[in-house]
Amino acid sequence: MSEDFTSSPEKPHVLIIGGGFAGLHCAMGLAGTDVRITLADRHNYHLFQPLLYQVATAVLSPADIAAPIRRILRNQRNVRVVLASLVGVDLQRKLARFPRGDVSYDYLVLASGATHSYFGRDDWAALAPGLKTVDDALEIRRRVLLAYEAAEWEADAAARRAKLTFVVIGGGPTGVELAGALQEIAAQTIPKDFRNIDTTTAQVILIEAADRLLGALPQKLGQRALQDLQQMGVEVRLNSLVTDVREGAVCIGEELLPAENIIWAAGVRGSEVAETLGVELDRQGRVLVADDLSIDGFPEAYVVGDLAHVVDEPSGQPVPGVAPAAIQMGQYVAAAIRENLAGETGQGPFVYRDKGGMATIGRNRAVATVAGYQFSGFLAWMIWSLVHIIPLIDFRSKLSVIFSWFWSYFSISKNARLITGRAEMKVKEALGVVPKADP
Amino acid sequence: MSEDFTSSPEKPHVLIIGGGFAGLHCAMGLAGTDVRITLADRHNYHLFQPLLYQVATAVLSPADIAAPIRRILRNQRNVRVVLASLVGVDLQRKLARFPRGDVSYDYLVLASGATHSYFGRDDWAALAPGLKTVDDALEIRRRVLLAYEAAEWEADAAARRAKLTFVVIGGGPTGVELAGALQEIAAQTIPKDFRNIDTTTAQVILIEAADRLLGALPQKLGQRALQDLQQMGVEVRLNSLVTDVREGAVCIGEELLPAENIIWAAGVRGSEVAETLGVELDRQGRVLVADDLSIDGFPEAYVVGDLAHVVDEPSGQPVPGVAPAAIQMGQYVAAAIRENLAGETGQGPFVYRDKGGMATIGRNRAVATVAGYQFSGFLAWMIWSLVHIIPLIDFRSKLSVIFSWFWSYFSISKNARLITGRAEMKVKEALGVVPKADP
Repeated sequence: MSEDFTSSPEKPHVLIIGGGFAGLHCAMGLAGTDVRITLADRHNYHLFQPLLYQVATAVLSPADIAAPIRRILRNQRNVRVVLASLVGVDLQRKLARFPRGDVSYDYLVLASGATHSYFGRDDWAALAPGLKTVDDALEIRRRVLLAYEAAEWEADAAARRAKLTFVVIGGGPTGVELAGALQEIAAQTIPKDFRNIDTTTAQVILIEAADRLLGALPQKLGQRALQDLQQMGVEVRLNSLVTDVREGAVCIGEELLPAENIIWAAGVRGSEVAETLGVELDRQGRVLVADDLSIDGFPEAYVVGDLAHVVDEPSGQPVPGVAPAAIQMGQYVAAAIRENLAGETGQGPFVYRDKGGMATIGRNRAVATVAGYQFSGFLAWMIWSLVHIIPLIDFRSKLSVIFSWFWSYFSISKNARLITGRAEMKVKEALGVVPKADP
Repeated sequence: MSEDFTSSPEKPHVLIIGGGFAGLHCAMGLAGTDVRITLADRHNYHLFQPLLYQVATAVLSPADIAAPIRRILRNQRNVRVVLASLVGVDLQRKLARFPRGDVSYDYLVLASGATHSYFGRDDWAALAPGLKTVDDALEIRRRVLLAYEAAEWEADAAARRAKLTFVVIGGGPTGVELAGALQEIAAQTIPKDFRNIDTTTAQVILIEAADRLLGALPQKLGQRALQDLQQMGVEVRLNSLVTDVREGAVCIGEELLPAENIIWAAGVRGSEVAETLGVELDRQGRVLVADDLSIDGFPEAYVVGDLAHVVDEPSGQPVPGVAPAAIQMGQYVAAAIRENLAGETGQGPFVYRDKGGMATIGRNRAVATVAGYQFSGFLAWMIWSLVHIIPLIDFRSKLSVIFSWFWSYFSISKNARLITGRAEMKVKEALGVVPKADP
């Protein structure tokens, strides 16, 4: 099975860390090139992260938005895929350290992405889970669904209110989309499912430290998102700084807000492995790379995707941590490696082509900016849907997602509303719920 | 939200334990009846258990074969659904005990089903997981997929062979279907995904203590299943008694068979709560019920589904633990309760109508007996597919399952091949795999 690989140790070895948009597109950009590529990821799947909030809110199943990396690359014979977690990198010796041993490389492409940042308050992580992986999404889904189960049989009014309060911290795209989807669940999807509680009284609160939502999109779209969320019934608090997260409550400035369900969508930082490089990082832990995305002094080591801090020349701003930027970086580095192998130069520095941004806020409500034009309402929702489907790598996922969306659109019914994983244990421990006042 | 329920404490209270086929169909059979129904389950979903092995083998997602019980019953106003785990029953006092307190009933319908039985060797459970719940299926899926990942980088030939050996213990429908599906994965679905191992050399071994497969179906179909499995490459061992299950090995008689992947499909027993009843149980822990499915001496307490031991008069055999029997028992008891409320009698004892049985053994291969006729091959596969789709309660699931099946049928590609849950932790702990001999 391995003739292409192990029999050719003389070929240059390209080690790619991470099978997200950046790493995957770098590997695909090297198809047909005379190299040996190793793509290592700690998960066995590539994830279409922009739709992850729909798994967290029980619209889609994980398999709808994820595909095994092995399958995506099965026909590219110069790649091998490794399920492995990188421990560190020795740039001087060109060695990547894994739990089972060191791996040498001729080219390194670090694409290990970002994780949640709790701004130094890592103790908040257990109380306010973030949304970066499939397991994160399933955990949030589990908590949201269990909250209603627990509220159904809570006799105390204040405790019931806290169980029906959903706080989303952070008003970027993830926070806006989560808040909209949580409000839809409460107001439209599940009211008829419960007997004791009126789920339409559930309160979704979106907290943002800045004075506007969607800071990365134009002002007008942030304003529209705010209006849409408020019309739907979401309470949006701008200029609100979260000072503490506790069991069952969030502190905003001096105010204590009782809430059993808290989701973190506020900050990200570069993955920890960046700290082992011994090079300069920005405040978010991202690697400050040269304009060809290489690490200063190590022209064979590149950083791409969310882990890279590179300034977009026209705007003077860092290139944002979005899927199109990651794809462009991956493709750029693949081309750079091909040039280097051929002894050529001339590609010039990396230039980010901004294809616009968007956020969806429930059925019929979205805001989008595409090629300089701004859209909102149903048209934006349609554009958003198309833009999100097109890059889905896997044909079957495309059909399945379209199907789930249309079904969900016409039926107002969330379809993946299953409590799995630790649910059973939790039920035994904490719920075991039966009405205290048996009728 | 609760006017129908809490405002009518004078209505008789029907407590149903379990939202499987039996419990759900009992609840639905009481629609429109002037009772208050509580349906308690420790999961929030109804599961289409006959297809669970397809989740374990990465063809379907959990949401394809499960639907929230609340949603199924949302329009039946005389039912409330409770996420709760029954602790015990006091038949004398007509009380059901839950972690949060006791619940009284006028009618009790015990439909809590069956669980794995390791014949007194509960220490085997961690080594050889069974397949009863969604979480079981996801755990098996995780183990199967990780086995290939681990084998890909195992340098020692014997260890690699053990990692690529899949042992299924038990030759009933679940064992036969699992063995066939595991063989298909190895031989057809994933060979191109790996570089170092040849997955077609993976060995699937099906172990059965009796002298034939599918003991509950006619002899001829068991013979056909044996032939089909052998043609596919499965090693079937009949008359083989498992004497021990160890870490990385199964003992069959005196023989030690190295195998890293062991799945238990051999025995079931009634759910533990039956032991709290203080009534006679059979050897499998099922309740020996009267011919109207009530517990002797307690005409208001019924047992239905897999937990009931009731003799089928024509054959003299116990009614089998299959979905059609469970549905029939649930409907029968709903009718019995309606009669009892009306002061009528006359339904007569429960009679099982055998609608046949079937097992699928991969693409194009299945064996079925329907209405006395026996089928095998592609025709059986088609019939099997139809029979399994029709009872799927949820319309969306129906379409989605058909879609996944046809896609999987034509593409030979397993689509839910994601390692989720504890995968990340496990990878860090045990795998962290990188080739020992870096090329």
